[in-house]
Amino acid sequence: MKKGIHHHQIGEQVDAYLLIKTSKKGIASNGKPFLTLQLTDKTGEIEAKLWGISPEDEATFISGTVVHLQGEVQDFRGMRQLKIKAIRPTSGMDQVKADDFLPSAPRNREEMLEEITQYIFDMQNAKIQRITRHLFKKHQKAFSVSPAATKNHHEFVSGLIYHVVSMLQLAKGIAQLYPSLDKDLLYAGVILHDMAKVRELSGPMATQYTVEGKLIGHISMMVNEIEEAAKELGIEGEEVMVLQHLVLSHHSKGEWGSPKAPMIREAEMLHMVDNIDAKMNMMDRALDRVMPGEFSERVFAMDNRSFYKPGFHQKPIDL
Amino acid sequence: MKKGIHHHQIGEQVDAYLLIKTSKKGIASNGKPFLTLQLTDKTGEIEAKLWGISPEDEATFISGTVVHLQGEVQDFRGMRQLKIKAIRPTSGMDQVKADDFLPSAPRNREEMLEEITQYIFDMQNAKIQRITRHLFKKHQKAFSVSPAATKNHHEFVSGLIYHVVSMLQLAKGIAQLYPSLDKDLLYAGVILHDMAKVRELSGPMATQYTVEGKLIGHISMMVNEIEEAAKELGIEGEEVMVLQHLVLSHHSKGEWGSPKAPMIREAEMLHMVDNIDAKMNMMDRALDRVMPGEFSERVFAMDNRSFYKPGFHQKPIDL
Amino acid sequence: MKKGIHHHQIGEQVDAYLLIKTSKKGIASNGKPFLTLQLTDKTGEIEAKLWGISPEDEATFISGTVVHLQGEVQDFRGMRQLKIKAIRPTSGMDQVKADDFLPSAPRNREEMLEEITQYIFDMQNAKIQRITRHLFKKHQKAFSVSPAATKNHHEFVSGLIYHVVSMLQLAKGIAQLYPSLDKDLLYAGVILHDMAKVRELSGPMATQYTVEGKLIGHISMMVNEIEEAAKELGIEGEEVMVLQHLVLSHHSKGEWGSPKAPMIREAEMLHMVDNIDAKMNMMDRALDRVMPGEFSERVFAMDNRSFYKPGFHQKPIDL
Amino acid sequence: MKKGIHHHQIGEQVDAYLLIKTSKKGIASNGKPFLTLQLTDKTGEIEAKLWGISPEDEATFISGTVVHLQGEVQDFRGMRQLKIKAIRPTSGMDQVKADDFLPSAPRNREEMLEEITQYIFDMQNAKIQRITRHLFKKHQKAFSVSPAATKNHHEFVSGLIYHVVSMLQLAKGIAQLYPSLDKDLLYAGVILHDMAKVRELSGPMATQYTVEGKLIGHISMMVNEIEEAAKELGIEGEEVMVLQHLVLSHHSKGEWGSPKAPMIREAEMLHMVDNIDAKMNMMDRALDRVMPGEFSERVFAMDNRSFYKPGFHQKPIDL
Amino acid sequence: MKKGIHHHQIGEQVDAYLLIKTSKKGIASNGKPFLTLQLTDKTGEIEAKLWGISPEDEATFISGTVVHLQGEVQDFRGMRQLKIKAIRPTSGMDQVKADDFLPSAPRNREEMLEEITQYIFDMQNAKIQRITRHLFKKHQKAFSVSPAATKNHHEFVSGLIYHVVSMLQLAKGIAQLYPSLDKDLLYAGVILHDMAKVRELSGPMATQYTVEGKLIGHISMMVNEIEEAAKELGIEGEEVMVLQHLVLSHHSKGEWGSPKAPMIREAEMLHMVDNIDAKMNMMDRALDRVMPGEFSERVFAMDNRSFYKPGFHQKPIDL
Amino acid sequence: MKKGIHHHQIGEQVDAYLLIKTSKKGIASNGKPFLTLQLTDKTGEIEAKLWGISPEDEATFISGTVVHLQGEVQDFRGMRQLKIKAIRPTSGMDQVKADDFLPSAPRNREEMLEEITQYIFDMQNAKIQRITRHLFKKHQKAFSVSPAATKNHHEFVSGLIYHVVSMLQLAKGIAQLYPSLDKDLLYAGVILHDMAKVRELSGPMATQYTVEGKLIGHISMMVNEIEEAAKELGIEGEEVMVLQHLVLSHHSKGEWGSPKAPMIREAEMLHMVDNIDAKMNMMDRALDRVMPGEFSERVFAMDNRSFYKPGFHQKPIDL
Repeated sequence: MKKGIHHHQIGEQVDAYLLIKTSKKGIASNGKPFLTLQLTDKTGEIEAKLWGISPEDEATFISGTVVHLQGEVQDFRGMRQLKIKAIRPTSGMDQVKADDFLPSAPRNREEMLEEITQYIFDMQNAKIQRITRHLFKKHQKAFSVSPAATKNHHEFVSGLIYHVVSMLQLAKGIAQLYPSLDKDLLYAGVILHDMAKVRELSGPMATQYTVEGKLIGHISMMVNEIEEAAKELGIEGEEVMVLQHLVLSHHSKGEWGSPKAPMIREAEMLHMVDNIDAKMNMMDRALDRVMPGEFSERVFAMDNRSFYKPGFHQKPIDL
Repeated sequence: MKKGIHHHQIGEQVDAYLLIKTSKKGIASNGKPFLTLQLTDKTGEIEAKLWGISPEDEATFISGTVVHLQGEVQDFRGMRQLKIKAIRPTSGMDQVKADDFLPSAPRNREEMLEEITQYIFDMQNAKIQRITRHLFKKHQKAFSVSPAATKNHHEFVSGLIYHVVSMLQLAKGIAQLYPSLDKDLLYAGVILHDMAKVRELSGPMATQYTVEGKLIGHISMMVNEIEEAAKELGIEGEEVMVLQHLVLSHHSKGEWGSPKAPMIREAEMLHMVDNIDAKMNMMDRALDRVMPGEFSERVFAMDNRSFYKPGFHQKPIDL
Repeated sequence: MKKGIHHHQIGEQVDAYLLIKTSKKGIASNGKPFLTLQLTDKTGEIEAKLWGISPEDEATFISGTVVHLQGEVQDFRGMRQLKIKAIRPTSGMDQVKADDFLPSAPRNREEMLEEITQYIFDMQNAKIQRITRHLFKKHQKAFSVSPAATKNHHEFVSGLIYHVVSMLQLAKGIAQLYPSLDKDLLYAGVILHDMAKVRELSGPMATQYTVEGKLIGHISMMVNEIEEAAKELGIEGEEVMVLQHLVLSHHSKGEWGSPKAPMIREAEMLHMVDNIDAKMNMMDRALDRVMPGEFSERVFAMDNRSFYKPGFHQKPIDL
Repeated sequence: MKKGIHHHQIGEQVDAYLLIKTSKKGIASNGKPFLTLQLTDKTGEIEAKLWGISPEDEATFISGTVVHLQGEVQDFRGMRQLKIKAIRPTSGMDQVKADDFLPSAPRNREEMLEEITQYIFDMQNAKIQRITRHLFKKHQKAFSVSPAATKNHHEFVSGLIYHVVSMLQLAKGIAQLYPSLDKDLLYAGVILHDMAKVRELSGPMATQYTVEGKLIGHISMMVNEIEEAAKELGIEGEEVMVLQHLVLSHHSKGEWGSPKAPMIREAEMLHMVDNIDAKMNMMDRALDRVMPGEFSERVFAMDNRSFYKPGFHQKPIDL
Repeated sequence: MKKGIHHHQIGEQVDAYLLIKTSKKGIASNGKPFLTLQLTDKTGEIEAKLWGISPEDEATFISGTVVHLQGEVQDFRGMRQLKIKAIRPTSGMDQVKADDFLPSAPRNREEMLEEITQYIFDMQNAKIQRITRHLFKKHQKAFSVSPAATKNHHEFVSGLIYHVVSMLQLAKGIAQLYPSLDKDLLYAGVILHDMAKVRELSGPMATQYTVEGKLIGHISMMVNEIEEAAKELGIEGEEVMVLQHLVLSHHSKGEWGSPKAPMIREAEMLHMVDNIDAKMNMMDRALDRVMPGEFSERVFAMDNRSFYKPGFHQKPIDL
Repeated sequence: MKKGIHHHQIGEQVDAYLLIKTSKKGIASNGKPFLTLQLTDKTGEIEAKLWGISPEDEATFISGTVVHLQGEVQDFRGMRQLKIKAIRPTSGMDQVKADDFLPSAPRNREEMLEEITQYIFDMQNAKIQRITRHLFKKHQKAFSVSPAATKNHHEFVSGLIYHVVSMLQLAKGIAQLYPSLDKDLLYAGVILHDMAKVRELSGPMATQYTVEGKLIGHISMMVNEIEEAAKELGIEGEEVMVLQHLVLSHHSKGEWGSPKAPMIREAEMLHMVDNIDAKMNMMDRALDRVMPGEFSERVFAMDNRSFYKPGFHQKPIDL
């Protein structure tokens, strides 16, 4: 199948290689075991049920396996589901590998690292620049592949860096319009704000929260890291505290995880820029398979709203 | 006076012409009448009390009068207040006129009208273009001088058009970054969203809510106007309803005045762009007289927060 | 079966003609397709599952079909459900038609139209009277059959007009008690407040929200219609704005869909009268099959409360 | 003065007898003592300040004293205030007595007691009737003069009984419209719901909460009284518990003082009828001195809203 | 099986006697009936499904029956579930009785009654002592076996008295630290606060809310009982009202069921002590089967949080 | 005066030495300058106004000065206020010093330090012990004099250490009752939870928030300090993260300043113990001047409640 699982409509036949992202055993209401498979390729994900499984099936169809599958896309309570007609594990003969099936950012990793490096290079304030560069270098590798979340938005390979690069572009436009903004501070805030997600999340495959992620969280971790970086680099001055404040307040409110509300112009702006990029990512995903004149599935993280594609807009490109 | 009332610090002497924006009689705790004067020049406002007034004073120092005043800026419960030492009404001899004392947008009115006209000219969707142009022409005159609010942000002469032009610039940068956005729709939303403020508010001088403004509100008025414009222009099609939805939902939530939450991508973006420009305006104003290393007055409309100017930032230009 | 589906208790046998209101395909946990049927007759509704269906079944048992059905009422998680033993579509031989199976208001349509006409006739304020009559005439036909909602209360044929007539009777009693109320305004508010539901909802059969209903809503639509009506009739004066305010504020709070809270005595009263009639309708429905000394099912729209029928009250009439 | 203090507009001269309802000493910002007097006559209240008082003044102008006063009604921050020009205590010569100056219900006390007696007489359920009559007899005297509150609504002599009689009339109209309502229960609920206010409040003059009122509250007190009454009368059966539930739930929500939400049809209706009468009373008071085309003062207990009197409504009768 | 159902991990085999606490019939998605059994022994509970039942099964496996069962503990959506392999009802031969299978407090009933008696004996204030003793004697029998709730915490045989005794020990330590606390009042509050749960709940087996429990609630019932007790004992004085206030306010807020917030020092402390004991009970239960380094199931009544057992803590004793 | 300013009732004469804690200039409504003095001695605080001041007065009566003062305690809107009759600065002759006038904890500083040292000494877990001891030593000096807050509770010299010692005693009693609690963890949490208040607040005299206190807050600071301490001591293992979690979550909810809710048994208990000690401190202070049968002033930080002292309780000792 050329077009990728994300683009299949209800009722279409599927004959494709797919990666098992997660596999979970359940007991059907007739008492028989089954597997709930989360299947993925580059374009997106779909859920499938494998009914009446044997112990061998259970051992075979595990997370990380690429399978060849035939079936049909069906509607299950308003969500797409893949009805399996035939499924088999792949072997060397199939010439497929798991990495090729993980959704990832639409831009090249190296290029994005390069772009961030340039933003850091252009900073005027040496203290801000050195702390940002130090932490960027320290986490560069994990940073370039980590997702930005386990669900909702940017939850794919390199989602974190893609989110950061988009925010930098947004921030650049905004900083041009409002000259009172301190560009160095704003860009450093964008680069650092979610960096500790490389510790909060378990990595790009089967992403989960780590214990430390649950008990401490990426915000407090990053505040610690900035403290440490400044110590290590021998940097003193208010820049350290101000960068910590930006990270600390980027969720804006206590009930959203920030122990302090933004009290600096660039901190408030960081929160708004984060918001725009996250929401555009969610809306684009919700709407990209929707036909003009119809509503999308509900988007839980946006107050469970359903979005409408006006009748005078275009059809999805590949339909 | 060269520097303008907005730039005077606590303790400084003032010797200047000022416009009485509002004048309100009160009874002091010793039983004597006094006036609370809201005084203004191009740069900002300050409050002053005129104690122990005579009936003549009451008749002289009324809203709209330009006065010559000598006094000192003092601190009153964390707010600046002007202590009056001498005050007199002006006459033809003084060669001053009220219009020159009203704060107004920092950009030229004609230039801003021109800029909006260009955005409308560039629209591709003829229906959206025609409705937007029709309403823009209809309200152009009031639109170019109206404030955007009675307080909080953009509450000065031409505040509304200045807010709209800033939002258009923001929207342009964002639309370049996210190609899924319909530029025509987003720009039309920006131009129309607050246009009925020309009816909701009483105009640039001593701005108040009109009765219609209180009972109906600018959102519902504008939805009506779009309906009417479409009827008049013989335009049918979903564009009409979608434009109405953008206006209707631009406050985002019921408790903020929008009877419908945004359900279209451009509606959500319109709300966020509106938010950014309003908040930048409020923060800039709160911070522009603050010295590095100090906190601003509290900003009521931003959860009553006080903003900090980092010690490594610059002093206000004129201090 | 004489007694109607609404009056069957758990455990009773059913042998009856019923109309399929909605039919929805699902996939059972054994992988087989089934239909969830919402079945109705004049007295009410019940859900049923049709297991293990063939493609022919799927094509036959669709919305709008009258079927003959044998089965038993069972309890499913505290809700009644109909277990199907036998089901067949009807033909001309059965001499049944869909219209006879839709629940509808307990009063005669013509009589209710007549009653509203009389209220309009009695109005003293000519402007209010003319606008109300104009819009009543314009929508009269749809108005007389439309439900007032898709669920919760008055969601049956002619539910809207029945709700309005009940509210008029309530309003009349209240206006007698409080002479400061403007009867014309209050009655006009009652008649117009929900009138745009004829556009917000898709009609009496398989009622759904229209796109316009979702994006704009009946409140804003009706404000538009009053504006237009006044224009068409050449009516000017505060009556127009005040009527719009009554419609605009009848949900009372922003979070309940009203962009303005009631600011006029009659607007506040309109909201309270609406509330009483809606809640009585919901409680009556919840309690009418409940035995004395027992609790009803939970009523979602009334804070998910369950209502008690005191032991000294009467049994339901038909049990 | 014929017209009563309630009807004086800003700027009018006053020359009248008035009762001092409360008198409170304060220290002016010049360090001198003054009195804040709450003055009243049958028509309403007004505040006045008596500046620069002597110890004799302080001993003379106390709560409960009728004074003769000359002055002018002024505006103080949007509220009316009476500026005192001359004030003296009255003596036997003036032939005035305090009782004649307290605002009280617009209906005759005996007539209202009679009306309630009739509602009780007509009850069909003997248990409900006996309990209601017992408690009505027990508290009759205090019940007929008690206010219903210390502020907001019905806070005048006989305010409680007036509130109850109005609610009974409302309830009667509603019960006719909805035959499923148990009239006995609803009327008993109306009569008993606030009866313990005779213990919660300190009486008609200088009304305050009692200690018991603050710590226990009228709702729990009345539940106790119903229990006791039933014991005393030897009444058993669910009627006792159901009456208690009506009293217990009449504030509808936990955060409004009801430990249980209404779970019986008549309990829900009792709450709504209470609401209507309280709100009408507040709106009527707010609006009765307002000119057509203007807004009232803000009504704190109604979400701090200000109410509008449409331009096509009548002027207050006595202006 | 020696170790008790509470201590079985996922994957373990079970061969044990268990009591059916509740048995509920359902219809599987294949249309066949099944039973959902809540099974219990002294150590805790587990759910099991009995598929494809006959009418005989339905009549046999009812609430209150002790069964012999073989099966395996499985994971069902994060909760433990018992998969039944073999099940049979027991007979006299098995020598088991239902009482031995109900979870109950870990302390001896008589000993706890004795302990409470001692607290009452030590009271200094005779009025408080007599009322407390009177009510304790009156309800002693039910009080010593009643659970404290139907779920969440202390929902086992003698849960109520165990909760009270723990709270008394807590209160004793606290009263030593803060000498301003009135010990008599605090202890009496602890003993009486939940005593009416013996009327609100249906008893230790298959515990449910009574009708009176739902409509009136244990708080209002107990306020009534204190009133009555005082009458019966001829006790007057503020102690009666203050004890009522403690009971009335022990849920602290209106939305949690208390019509009055605590306004007395001991009332506030009573609420906090109640809170501590309830939360410790919930956390201990959630964590006692959890391995070090892992998270518990979510605890609904504690904001749906999941609790972590640090890696340096000990394994559960019996694993 | 022997008895201390805290114990003076309304109407009493004062002739005493007092320390000026804060002095703030204002402009009276007659245009003249005055000072608002916050005066203190060991027993408490009182406000006074000094009217009609000269520039010399302004320079003399500044924060930190001990004055001799004669006056009278008066009531100002329900708060006590001191009316000044005579005031003079003190000289060497008076033999008074500022330190003797600051309210401070009722226990000896050294003794409290000793007590904490003992708790640390008794810890079993060496990692927890070493981190706690390290930080306790590091901040010992400031920790032993710092207040715990700027207002509400424990806002006096050594308030922080007094709060911690009280909490340790509470925690000890609780840990005895619930053996599942890890004593080491709980005690360490108590000792460390507020320790960074020595950086968040400016110290015991004229206590204010520092810039760092406002932008970062004591919770995040302490998490940093634990990280650093562990690094310095070469300690690894989950204890570090768990201690950080206790500090991080001790305000319990996001909206109260904790970015993570408690997810460990001892974290939840730490929050509750903190709560008890803070609330007892506030209630004791509110009630200690209140006569039996009366209500206290409102306590803002406890939902603005007013507390009642039962009539059967004792009079304040010194009245």
